[in-house]
Amino acid sequence: MENNRIKKIGVMTSGGDSPGMNAAIRAVVRACAYYHIKCVGFARGFQGMIDGEYEELNARSVRNIINLGGTFLKSARSKDFLTKEGRAKAAENLKEAEVDGMILIGGDGTFRGGKVFSKEHGIPVIGVPGTIDNDIFGTNFTIGYDTALNTVVEAIDKIRDTASSHNRLFFVEVMGRDAGFIALNSGIGAGAEEILIPEENLGLERLLDSLERSRRSGKTSSIVVVSEGDKIGKNVFELAEYVKENLPRYDAKVTVLGHIQRGGSPSCFDRVLASRLSIKAVELLLDGKRDQMVGMLNNEIESCDLDKALKSKPVMNKDLLRISDILST
Amino acid sequence: MENNRIKKIGVMTSGGDSPGMNAAIRAVVRACAYYHIKCVGFARGFQGMIDGEYEELNARSVRNIINLGGTFLKSARSKDFLTKEGRAKAAENLKEAEVDGMILIGGDGTFRGGKVFSKEHGIPVIGVPGTIDNDIFGTNFTIGYDTALNTVVEAIDKIRDTASSHNRLFFVEVMGRDAGFIALNSGIGAGAEEILIPEENLGLERLLDSLERSRRSGKTSSIVVVSEGDKIGKNVFELAEYVKENLPRYDAKVTVLGHIQRGGSPSCFDRVLASRLSIKAVELLLDGKRDQMVGMLNNEIESCDLDKALKSKPVMNKDLLRISDILST
Amino acid sequence: MENNRIKKIGVMTSGGDSPGMNAAIRAVVRACAYYHIKCVGFARGFQGMIDGEYEELNARSVRNIINLGGTFLKSARSKDFLTKEGRAKAAENLKEAEVDGMILIGGDGTFRGGKVFSKEHGIPVIGVPGTIDNDIFGTNFTIGYDTALNTVVEAIDKIRDTASSHNRLFFVEVMGRDAGFIALNSGIGAGAEEILIPEENLGLERLLDSLERSRRSGKTSSIVVVSEGDKIGKNVFELAEYVKENLPRYDAKVTVLGHIQRGGSPSCFDRVLASRLSIKAVELLLDGKRDQMVGMLNNEIESCDLDKALKSKPVMNKDLLRISDILST
Amino acid sequence: MENNRIKKIGVMTSGGDSPGMNAAIRAVVRACAYYHIKCVGFARGFQGMIDGEYEELNARSVRNIINLGGTFLKSARSKDFLTKEGRAKAAENLKEAEVDGMILIGGDGTFRGGKVFSKEHGIPVIGVPGTIDNDIFGTNFTIGYDTALNTVVEAIDKIRDTASSHNRLFFVEVMGRDAGFIALNSGIGAGAEEILIPEENLGLERLLDSLERSRRSGKTSSIVVVSEGDKIGKNVFELAEYVKENLPRYDAKVTVLGHIQRGGSPSCFDRVLASRLSIKAVELLLDGKRDQMVGMLNNEIESCDLDKALKSKPVMNKDLLRISDILST
Repeated sequence: MENNRIKKIGVMTSGGDSPGMNAAIRAVVRACAYYHIKCVGFARGFQGMIDGEYEELNARSVRNIINLGGTFLKSARSKDFLTKEGRAKAAENLKEAEVDGMILIGGDGTFRGGKVFSKEHGIPVIGVPGTIDNDIFGTNFTIGYDTALNTVVEAIDKIRDTASSHNRLFFVEVMGRDAGFIALNSGIGAGAEEILIPEENLGLERLLDSLERSRRSGKTSSIVVVSEGDKIGKNVFELAEYVKENLPRYDAKVTVLGHIQRGGSPSCFDRVLASRLSIKAVELLLDGKRDQMVGMLNNEIESCDLDKALKSKPVMNKDLLRISDILST
Repeated sequence: MENNRIKKIGVMTSGGDSPGMNAAIRAVVRACAYYHIKCVGFARGFQGMIDGEYEELNARSVRNIINLGGTFLKSARSKDFLTKEGRAKAAENLKEAEVDGMILIGGDGTFRGGKVFSKEHGIPVIGVPGTIDNDIFGTNFTIGYDTALNTVVEAIDKIRDTASSHNRLFFVEVMGRDAGFIALNSGIGAGAEEILIPEENLGLERLLDSLERSRRSGKTSSIVVVSEGDKIGKNVFELAEYVKENLPRYDAKVTVLGHIQRGGSPSCFDRVLASRLSIKAVELLLDGKRDQMVGMLNNEIESCDLDKALKSKPVMNKDLLRISDILST
Repeated sequence: MENNRIKKIGVMTSGGDSPGMNAAIRAVVRACAYYHIKCVGFARGFQGMIDGEYEELNARSVRNIINLGGTFLKSARSKDFLTKEGRAKAAENLKEAEVDGMILIGGDGTFRGGKVFSKEHGIPVIGVPGTIDNDIFGTNFTIGYDTALNTVVEAIDKIRDTASSHNRLFFVEVMGRDAGFIALNSGIGAGAEEILIPEENLGLERLLDSLERSRRSGKTSSIVVVSEGDKIGKNVFELAEYVKENLPRYDAKVTVLGHIQRGGSPSCFDRVLASRLSIKAVELLLDGKRDQMVGMLNNEIESCDLDKALKSKPVMNKDLLRISDILST
Repeated sequence: MENNRIKKIGVMTSGGDSPGMNAAIRAVVRACAYYHIKCVGFARGFQGMIDGEYEELNARSVRNIINLGGTFLKSARSKDFLTKEGRAKAAENLKEAEVDGMILIGGDGTFRGGKVFSKEHGIPVIGVPGTIDNDIFGTNFTIGYDTALNTVVEAIDKIRDTASSHNRLFFVEVMGRDAGFIALNSGIGAGAEEILIPEENLGLERLLDSLERSRRSGKTSSIVVVSEGDKIGKNVFELAEYVKENLPRYDAKVTVLGHIQRGGSPSCFDRVLASRLSIKAVELLLDGKRDQMVGMLNNEIESCDLDKALKSKPVMNKDLLRISDILST
C-alpha cells in the first residue's frame, strides 16, 4: 500500500451509538499501527473535534474492547458543528493535531456533516456506517443492526413466555422511526403475528382480521411488533386500546423495548463487519481516496461516494412481508 | 415416608407467571412418580379446576422443561373462583378426578384463594411461592425472583452502554407495585445512582441533590432505578420531566422494562429452589400436612401455616439502602 | 402458485443438529398450511423414514418452537439408509403415507443420501442446508452457523476474562473438521491472536514468532483459536505443549468448546434464514421442481441442483486471514 | 464509624479469578471514598505487593466495571510470597505506601498467605471470599459461585439441545477438585441424570444401574455431571468409555467445560454479594478489627476469625443428593 501523504488519521463516533462501534475503533487503530501511521481518537463526535478533545491511540489502547457495547470515544450530536464557525474551529484543531484524514463512524447525519466539512476544509473523510437502524444506502448491513435484532428477539422470547402462559396479546414497540428493518426482521425471528412498519400501511382492518383469524385458528397468544414510525396512524398504546375495544376477547398489553436495543455486547457478525469495514476505511485514506463510505455489499467490502450514499435510501425487501404472512398462518 | 391417604396430587400455577414455575411443576410430578402416587396438572390455575381442565402427568410429561420460562400449565386470574359456586364446582371436579391434595404454585392471591377453598371443601392445599416480586412472608426467596434480578441487571447493563456513550441520565422502571425487592437489589447490582422504592420516600430534594453531587464529582452518566410503586408521588415519566426542569444539564431518558421481567430461562438458583420447594410440598401432603406454605429460610427448606404467611409481610433489608448510598459515592 | 401434483410433503432433519432446525421445520409446516397441502414430519432423519415413524403436523404443532435449539423431529445418522434395502423400505413407507415430496434439512451427507434416494425411487427431494459448519456450496450461510459463531465468541469472551486476569495464553478448539469458517470468523470476532484452520498451514514457526512478537509489543494475554481439523499437524493439546516448551514465559491452557457449539437458541439471523429457505423449499416442490438445494446467495434466496451443490466446495474468504493479521497487531 | 488509625487501605485479588471480583474492588474503593480514607490497588495479588506495583484508586477509577468478569487488578499465584524474604519485601512496600490495612479478595490459599503475613508484619488483613468453588468455611456463598452455576447450566442447556436431538448420553465435567458444590447444584439445575462429586463415591454399579433404569423408563437422552475431583476413580473420558463398554446402546460423548466457568459478567446475586461483603471488610478495618474473613451467613453479613475459616471445611448439603435422585426419576 503506497502512501506518501497520510501520516496521521483521526477517528470518532457520532450520532446514536451502536454495538460494534468499539470494534470499529479498534480496527481503525490496529490498521493504523499495521501500516505504521499514527492515530488519534476524538471524543464525542464532531463536538470533540470542535473542542479539541482528542488523544493518541496505539494498538494497546484498544485491547479488550472488541466485546463491549457503546463507544469508549463517546458520541454526541453537535449543534456547533451545524455552524460554519464550529466547523472552522474543528478544521483548525485537526490541522494543529496534524490529522491528514478523518474516519467517521455513524449514520447519515454524521456523513452529511462530514461531507460539508470535507468540502469546506479540504480534509478527506471516510464514513463507516454504524447505526442499529440499517437505514444507510450502500451497505447491506450497518454495524450494530445484527446485535439489535438479537436483543429484540431475546426480549420478545421472554415476553412470549408470559404471553403464552396467560393467553395474552402483546404489542411490542421496537426502534425504527423511518425504516422498518428492525421490526420486519425481528418480527419474523420472534414469530410475531403481525408486523407494522413505516414503509407500508396495512390498515387497521387487516390487523383486526388477522388477529381474529389467529384466535379462531386456535392461537391463544400473539405478538405484534410495531416500529416506532409505523404508518398506521396510531402509536403502540393507542393500537392496544383500539384492539381491546374491537376485539374484547383479547387481553392486550404493551411493551416499549427502548434503549436496551442500542446496547449490549456485539454479535460475532457485527464484530467482524465492524473490523472489515474499518480496515477498508483506513486503506482508502492511505490510497488517496476521500469522501467515500465503506459498505458490505453481497458479502464483499466495497466503497461508494458519500454523495451517492446520502442521496439514496436502502430498499426494504418487501418479500419479507409475504414471508411473515406465511409464517403466521 | 408413610402415606395411607394420598393417592393422587393435583398441581397448578396461578397469578402472574414467573421463571422456574416449569421447574416447580416438574419437581412435583417427579416426586409423585418417586413416591408412587399419581399426579394431575390443572390448566390456567383455579379456572382450570373449575372448568375441569386437567391431564395426568407422568415423569416423562415434564422432560426438557426445567429450562423454559413461563408455565406449560398456563396461568390465569379467575373471577369465578372468587364465588362460592365457582369453588364448589372446582371441589366437585377434584373429587371426580380423585385428587387428594392440591399444590398451588403462585403468590399471595393464589394462597388466599387456596385457604378459603381448603376450609370450605376439606381438600388439603400446599402453597409454593412463585412470583418475581419476592413479596411473600415465610421464605427468603420466591421462585423467579433471582431470574428477574438477572434480567433487569442485564437490561440495565445494555442501557448503561448507551448512557455512558452519550453522557445521559436514565430512569429505568422495574416491577414491584408494593415491594421494592427487585428495585433495590437490581439497582445495587446494576450500579444505579439512586433507587426509588415503595417502602421509603426519600423525597425529590434528595434525588436532585444526589444527581447534582454525582455530576460535580465527575460522573458523566447515571442510572436511577424506580419501582413501579415508588412512593415519591410521581411516575417515572414525570420524574424524568421534573429532573430535566430542575437540572437542565441532564439529558434524561426513560425506559420501562415491563414484561420481559416475567419471562426467560430460569437461573440455576431458581431451578434448584423450585425443585427443592416442590419436593417438600409433595412430602408435606404425603405426611398428612395441610394448608401450609413451603419456603426457604436461611438456606433450609421449611414450612409454615398459610395463615401465618398471609398475615405477615416480608421485611425489606433496609441496610441495602445504606449499601446503595455508599456504592454511588 | 399452481400445483396439481403435490398434496402432501414430508420433512425431516438429519446429520448433526444445528440451531434453527426447529425454525426451519416450523416454516415448512406453516408454508404447507398456507398453501393448503398436508405435511408430515419424520423422526430421526432417514431412519424414521425407514422405520415409518412419522406424524402429521399442522400449523399449531409447531407453535413456540422458533426459539428452541436442537430439532424436535430429532436427528440421527442412519446406516440402514446406506443400503438399497433400507432406501426401498423408506420409499415404501413414503408411498403408504402418500408423501409426494421430501424436504431434507441437513448437511452434505444428508443431501447425498437424498439424491440417491430420489434417483432410485422417483420421489422429489429438496435440500435445506442446516449445519453449523457453513461448509455447503450454493449458499453463503447455512442454518445454525451464525448462532454457533455467537456461542463461540461468547465463550471466548468468558475465557478472555480469566486469560487477561492471569496473563495467560489460551488455545481454544472450535468445531470444523474440514472447514475453517467457524474458526476464522469467531477468531476475528473474539479478537484472537492467531487462528489455525484446515485450509492453510501457517507453520509452527509463524505461530511462535507471532506470540513472541505480541508479548514483546506489550500484550499480556492471548487467545489462539484452533479448528478441529487444523493442518499444522498437532492437536490443540500438543500445540499448547509445544508452545510451553518453546516459549517458557507463557502459561498456556487449553479449552475444547465441544458440543455447546451445536445447541442454544438460534440467533435472529438463523431464524430468518431458516424461515426463508424452508418456505422456498416448499414452493419449489409445489412448482414441480426436484433434487434442488435452496441457499442464500448475495442476500437473495436461490436454488441450485443438488448435484452441483455436492460437487463443489464453498470458497473460504482468504482475505479474512489478512484481516486477522492486521487486527492482532 | 470512628477511626483514628486507618488512613489508607490496600486491596488486591489473588488466586483463581472469579466473576464479581471487579464488583468487590469497586465496593472497597467506593467505601473508602465514602469514609474519606485513601485506597490503593495492588496488581497481581501478593506478587504486586512484593513488586511494589500499585496505584491509587478513587471513586471514578472503578466506574463501569461492576458488570465485567475477571479482575482489573489482575490475579496471580506468587511463589515469592511463600518465602519470608518475599513477605518482608511486601511489608516494606506497604509501609512505604503508608497502607494501614489490606483487603484480600480470593480463596483459602490467599487467606493462608494473608494470615502468615499479618502475623509476621503486624499489618491487619481482612479476607473477602472470592472463588467460584464455594469451598470456604464461614460463608454460605463465595463471590463468583452463583455466576459459575449459571454459566454451567446455560452450557448444559445447549448440550441438552443436541443430546435430546440425537438420543445421546453426555458426560459433562465441571470445576471442583475438592468440593462438589458446582457439580451438585448445577447438576440439579440442568436436570442431570446423575451427579458425581468428590464428597461421595456412589460407585460405578450405581451409575450403570441408574442409566439403564432411565433408558428403560423411556428417557432417550441423559446428562451426567462430573466434578473434576470425582471420587469414582475414573476421569470423565474413562467414565464415558466404561459406560460405552457396559451399556452399548448408549452413544456417550464428553464435554469438559473448562475455563469458561471462571469468566463472564457476574449475576446480580454475585454483584450484590461482592458489594456487601467488601463494604463490610472496609468497615471492619475502620473498626480496628484484623485477621477476619467476611461472609454471608443466613442472609446476613458476618465475620469470623481467619483462623477459624481456614481450619474448617464448609459442609455440603447432602440432602441435595436425595433431591437429585428424586428429580431424575
